[in-house]
Amino acid sequence: MVNLAIFSTKDAGLLSHIKIVLVETTHPGNIGAVARAMKNMTMTNLWLVAPKVFPSAEATARASGADDVLAAATVCQSLQEAIADCQLVIGASARCRTISWPEMTPRECARLCAVSGSYPSVAIVFGRENSGLKNHELDLCHYLLRIPCNAEYSSLNIAAAVQVVCYELFVAAGVQESIPVGDKGECPLATMAQMESFYAHLYEALTDIGFMHPDKSKSIMRRLRRIYNRSRLDTKELDILRGILRMSQDNQKSK
Amino acid sequence: MVNLAIFSTKDAGLLSHIKIVLVETTHPGNIGAVARAMKNMTMTNLWLVAPKVFPSAEATARASGADDVLAAATVCQSLQEAIADCQLVIGASARCRTISWPEMTPRECARLCAVSGSYPSVAIVFGRENSGLKNHELDLCHYLLRIPCNAEYSSLNIAAAVQVVCYELFVAAGVQESIPVGDKGECPLATMAQMESFYAHLYEALTDIGFMHPDKSKSIMRRLRRIYNRSRLDTKELDILRGILRMSQDNQKSK
Repeated sequence: MVNLAIFSTKDAGLLSHIKIVLVETTHPGNIGAVARAMKNMTMTNLWLVAPKVFPSAEATARASGADDVLAAATVCQSLQEAIADCQLVIGASARCRTISWPEMTPRECARLCAVSGSYPSVAIVFGRENSGLKNHELDLCHYLLRIPCNAEYSSLNIAAAVQVVCYELFVAAGVQESIPVGDKGECPLATMAQMESFYAHLYEALTDIGFMHPDKSKSIMRRLRRIYNRSRLDTKELDILRGILRMSQDNQKSK
Repeated sequence: MVNLAIFSTKDAGLLSHIKIVLVETTHPGNIGAVARAMKNMTMTNLWLVAPKVFPSAEATARASGADDVLAAATVCQSLQEAIADCQLVIGASARCRTISWPEMTPRECARLCAVSGSYPSVAIVFGRENSGLKNHELDLCHYLLRIPCNAEYSSLNIAAAVQVVCYELFVAAGVQESIPVGDKGECPLATMAQMESFYAHLYEALTDIGFMHPDKSKSIMRRLRRIYNRSRLDTKELDILRGILRMSQDNQKSK
């Protein structure tokens, strides 16, 4: 696992109307990995249509802490049963077919299911590892979900596919806040006045060590300003840099 | 696997400047699953820093047809080695830390790396399954990548995390708009090797002027790295800063 920190706390309830349905999954490890992928994105409603092996120790091992999702999973024998209460069914399996279904990307799917609020109960259905969904199962779907991928190598692991879809749902459900680059939380960013005072100090210190030639000082200072302006310094960082300048000046004076 | 159809055919070359780096991966199966996740999104440049077991039959099995990516993977012994030729390094591991790094989401990362075209060589680094990246490895990163996820259950499987990031890169690479990021003119950006040599020089110069106390030097250097990493220096700017360090040292010696 990768210990990824939290972007922001989302309301787990926001996606509770969306169930993930796995049809005749062959490898129990994949069922566990799907449970983990779902829970990572606050989704917990898992349905298993005629799984080959379930429950199983392998599924629990791969669930890696999402065994509550496994324990709460509903096992049934037909896709009809799993989707009976849904208003919207999206099938995430797509080979080339003579009859084409209306299609959507995971992002479009997320916009429709997680944001619009038009559908009180939604199923996203994933087919068998080797052969996907059969045509009579696709007949039950309103849309086909296609994950953008390599034309030459388009077969995603089922848990990886679920991860991508649940990630898009989670992102869509949350407020689309962008993390401002350079906002580092603990310390306030330096004001322009503090930056000006730093640049004056920097100029003075560079003059002291003999780095500033009258004909070049202007362009050098411009370049240095660009470096530190890009860096978006906070007040603590400014203190450190000014500490260095002071120390350099003290050394100079003691010569 | 899920037989997911192709959204659109993309030029595989579009993402060839981005390498995925795995640091000290414990489970060989995860390495295989990462190779598959990459290839699904047309990415093939995989670096393994001191993997516990590699090559292995388990990795090949989980790669499931992406064994060409495994075969072409570069194994090395340090993160420094893996990122030496990169201008931008993004670390995908984040526990709570006292010093916080500038952060981005996978979507922001994709906009920056896959669309802007500002960085000829990019590394996205994934840490150990159980403990992520260590602080001294994060010191080498310009940004921390945070995957939006469940606050109560935030540990994604490493291959699932790679899948989400590569998916966002692939989707972004298909977007034909270019976002100019910090126009820095004609000079090439400094490589990580050049930055390391600058940091070594900076440490030396700060020691010379008596700024470095043995008990504080580590945290001071970490803060200084963050400042200059954020600033994304080009080679000319690096020359100026090293000129200042040299001048300061010459002054010191002439005391």
